[in-house]
Amino acid sequence: MSWITDAWYVAAWDGEVGREPMARTICGKPVMLYRKLDGTPVAMRDACPHRMLPLSMGIKEGDSIRCRYHGLKLGADGCAEEMPLRTDPVNKGICAETFAVVERHRFIWLWVGDKAKADPNLIPDFWPCSAPGWVFDGGYDPVACDYRLMIDNLMDLTHETYVHSGSIGQIELMEAPIETRVEGDGVFVSRWMPGVEPPPFWRLALGRDCKVDRWQVCQFVAPSNVMIDVGVAPVEMGLTLADHDAGTRGFVIDAITPESETSMHYFWGMARNFLTDDPGFTVRFKTQQGGVFAQDLEVLEAQQRSIAANPDIKLRGYNIDEGGVRARRVIDRLRKAKEAMAA
Amino acid sequence: MSWITDAWYVAAWDGEVGREPMARTICGKPVMLYRKLDGTPVAMRDACPHRMLPLSMGIKEGDSIRCRYHGLKLGADGCAEEMPLRTDPVNKGICAETFAVVERHRFIWLWVGDKAKADPNLIPDFWPCSAPGWVFDGGYDPVACDYRLMIDNLMDLTHETYVHSGSIGQIELMEAPIETRVEGDGVFVSRWMPGVEPPPFWRLALGRDCKVDRWQVCQFVAPSNVMIDVGVAPVEMGLTLADHDAGTRGFVIDAITPESETSMHYFWGMARNFLTDDPGFTVRFKTQQGGVFAQDLEVLEAQQRSIAANPDIKLRGYNIDEGGVRARRVIDRLRKAKEAMAA
Amino acid sequence: MSWITDAWYVAAWDGEVGREPMARTICGKPVMLYRKLDGTPVAMRDACPHRMLPLSMGIKEGDSIRCRYHGLKLGADGCAEEMPLRTDPVNKGICAETFAVVERHRFIWLWVGDKAKADPNLIPDFWPCSAPGWVFDGGYDPVACDYRLMIDNLMDLTHETYVHSGSIGQIELMEAPIETRVEGDGVFVSRWMPGVEPPPFWRLALGRDCKVDRWQVCQFVAPSNVMIDVGVAPVEMGLTLADHDAGTRGFVIDAITPESETSMHYFWGMARNFLTDDPGFTVRFKTQQGGVFAQDLEVLEAQQRSIAANPDIKLRGYNIDEGGVRARRVIDRLRKAKEAMAA
Repeated sequence: MSWITDAWYVAAWDGEVGREPMARTICGKPVMLYRKLDGTPVAMRDACPHRMLPLSMGIKEGDSIRCRYHGLKLGADGCAEEMPLRTDPVNKGICAETFAVVERHRFIWLWVGDKAKADPNLIPDFWPCSAPGWVFDGGYDPVACDYRLMIDNLMDLTHETYVHSGSIGQIELMEAPIETRVEGDGVFVSRWMPGVEPPPFWRLALGRDCKVDRWQVCQFVAPSNVMIDVGVAPVEMGLTLADHDAGTRGFVIDAITPESETSMHYFWGMARNFLTDDPGFTVRFKTQQGGVFAQDLEVLEAQQRSIAANPDIKLRGYNIDEGGVRARRVIDRLRKAKEAMAA
Repeated sequence: MSWITDAWYVAAWDGEVGREPMARTICGKPVMLYRKLDGTPVAMRDACPHRMLPLSMGIKEGDSIRCRYHGLKLGADGCAEEMPLRTDPVNKGICAETFAVVERHRFIWLWVGDKAKADPNLIPDFWPCSAPGWVFDGGYDPVACDYRLMIDNLMDLTHETYVHSGSIGQIELMEAPIETRVEGDGVFVSRWMPGVEPPPFWRLALGRDCKVDRWQVCQFVAPSNVMIDVGVAPVEMGLTLADHDAGTRGFVIDAITPESETSMHYFWGMARNFLTDDPGFTVRFKTQQGGVFAQDLEVLEAQQRSIAANPDIKLRGYNIDEGGVRARRVIDRLRKAKEAMAA
Repeated sequence: MSWITDAWYVAAWDGEVGREPMARTICGKPVMLYRKLDGTPVAMRDACPHRMLPLSMGIKEGDSIRCRYHGLKLGADGCAEEMPLRTDPVNKGICAETFAVVERHRFIWLWVGDKAKADPNLIPDFWPCSAPGWVFDGGYDPVACDYRLMIDNLMDLTHETYVHSGSIGQIELMEAPIETRVEGDGVFVSRWMPGVEPPPFWRLALGRDCKVDRWQVCQFVAPSNVMIDVGVAPVEMGLTLADHDAGTRGFVIDAITPESETSMHYFWGMARNFLTDDPGFTVRFKTQQGGVFAQDLEVLEAQQRSIAANPDIKLRGYNIDEGGVRARRVIDRLRKAKEAMAA
């Protein structure tokens, strides 16, 4: 497997999971998700422990799920509550695998590996998605590519010039110096553009026209997410790359979850601290962002097909790829640490 | 292979095979079927012994088949009667593999294994399909699942409650005790429900309203078929599970033929000894039965996909699965006996 | 691989390749083709040496191609001219694989193997496709079969009787004696029909009605092409099989290029030395020829599926197959010679 199993992954947007079961394969494992009557999410292997019919085809009864084949009824803990023959004594040892699952920052997070290690404190800190004074919304797309190709894509925004020419691509981005930095399991690719004219989007966000300092900080967040801190501040505020919290700021949120070795779930959105009382802006921006990501998807899926069609060629890394290369190194290091412990 | 090769399998309904060739893959082998002028069926490997074009694409000439590529003409015995170049001497050693094939009980039966052992006396005794005083009709569906999943399904009718809720499912079935019995290569799962109210279907079949003894006997018939003896008799007739031939009786006929490891041919129908002069009943019942089986197919194909998607999980058996478990044991025993003989 | 790599293959019709890049997989290698401003064709591995996006999705800039992902710009020699970050120094060592490519006889020929050996003198001599006094036109079809099945098909025209009954099939062809001859890497299957009535097609071509000598010479041209010399001459001209250049003559041109082990590119057409100033004839004949080949494709793709479905059966050769059998032997001999040199 190319991914880390002992880690929290986004399994769904909060609003995708309701009382009725839904099916999604996370890191190669078919999972069924639903909410209990009290709203807490439940995640279970999507296969009845009896004859393996997907439980997501089943019937909800209170907080329990009944398989639609022979009627084995399982509680939210995955364990049998009623046998197919109701007269048979219940064997509590019959259980579907359950997964640790936590709702936080607008997402349902799932731990696919060893449940004993599933510490909610390890959930990536997507704070702008749930902080007061911030607004967050976005969408979901399945993508037919290795999840690491998406990380590469997002850790190097020079691709915007060609993939997104006509939308967000700007030739200026190609010329701003970047700095790449690794901190623990995080990788940061930073651009600081002092004293520039704000482009239309940021002029609107700022609410006025003046010279600004502008930044773009791509952050790889293990196991496989990217948050991009973007924004501007009037020059007179005197902010710096190290301290720009007071600026007009957005976070492009990219939660990336492997489905299989060649497919992934893409949860994308934007959190912002400006125009927070303008729901029209939220809708317009989400529509635009969806369009931009559709361009990425076309490229990523073509790239994946090309990798399969050219087995004798390897991906190469240049200077601009340093962010992606270092993010992959973090993933490899964490995977190997796990393997070493297992050996 | 998960199936027994030295055995008779249903290859087609009698009415499916005519003068023109048809193609069907039986136990992994592409087969072409047609009838001779005298009506007897012929089965041949569906590949010309010359350049392998499917013979089912060929041209019938009398009882012979001519390949539509280069015109090699083969007799009903599979052997060359005319070479592509008509001036070339006929090489009688050029032959397509033929299969032993017998028409009986409304089906065309085919023996895929060693032809020397193809004894027609070994054809499963589907007597209700052809006995005087009985009427038999049904349909055909291809199903994308391991043929043994269908056997499991039919040897345990408790699934009716959930899969067929809204049609034939009845909660009472879950409460009647069952008895499982193995006799030679047969497995019997029997339910005897004495002194019950007949459900609407059986009231209609019986032609009157009175307390009845009711039964359901699922019989696994090697290599891979299931016959389900269902019916009722007025209590005053005093019938028993061991002796209920005089009752109002139907046999649900399920001829199950492997196509590949993950697909099968399903020939289904009902033979009955009541309302035998009511063709309208035949049509209505066949339509209803097709609808019920469509519900099974949805479940069986989802189950097959789930087995592929969850390779680390195994099918488990509970009490209600005893019939299917024992049928699989018969199949395994017959397969191993064959292998032992081959070794 | 079932094909010879050190050889010229037709990659495209001349008119298929223009200024914009096109993608085609040749002998298992994804290739991008385009023309430079001066019209000369360029062929490059269809994967950017940076992150492998197909270059055929890229942007043409003069004679160069710029990858649409990060903007790496490659010259027609495949080598980097501009890095994604324009400020980065150009690393001329970054190159996409290029292929030797030559335009000749209306086709773009490509050498997939060792470029040092790509001698244009080795391009098959399709002289009737470009000779003065001759007219040549045709079409293209992808075919889902092993390319050798197409060679077999064309080296034995007895299949016309059955595959093309209703169009060009004539029972007389089955009776004319054939002579098969190997000359170096060429295989010739010849039929000479002296003093026959010309069929309608040849009467039209000839422009009058008289007894003719008629011929059909299938020529296998390594690595994988077939040219069929067909025609008639009035008996009084006294031509012979060895010397019939003065006749009314056409060449059925079949350029056959492997795509994968089970798929190929088929470039077909007819070159003729009669009715050369009648473009209406060209169009009508091309339409008819396309219809005839569509019948072949149906058979060839069914044959390929049958080969996959009957892994225990082998293709057999009879007398009529001698041309195809010998052509395959030439291919095998050339492949082994290459392997011996490599060892």
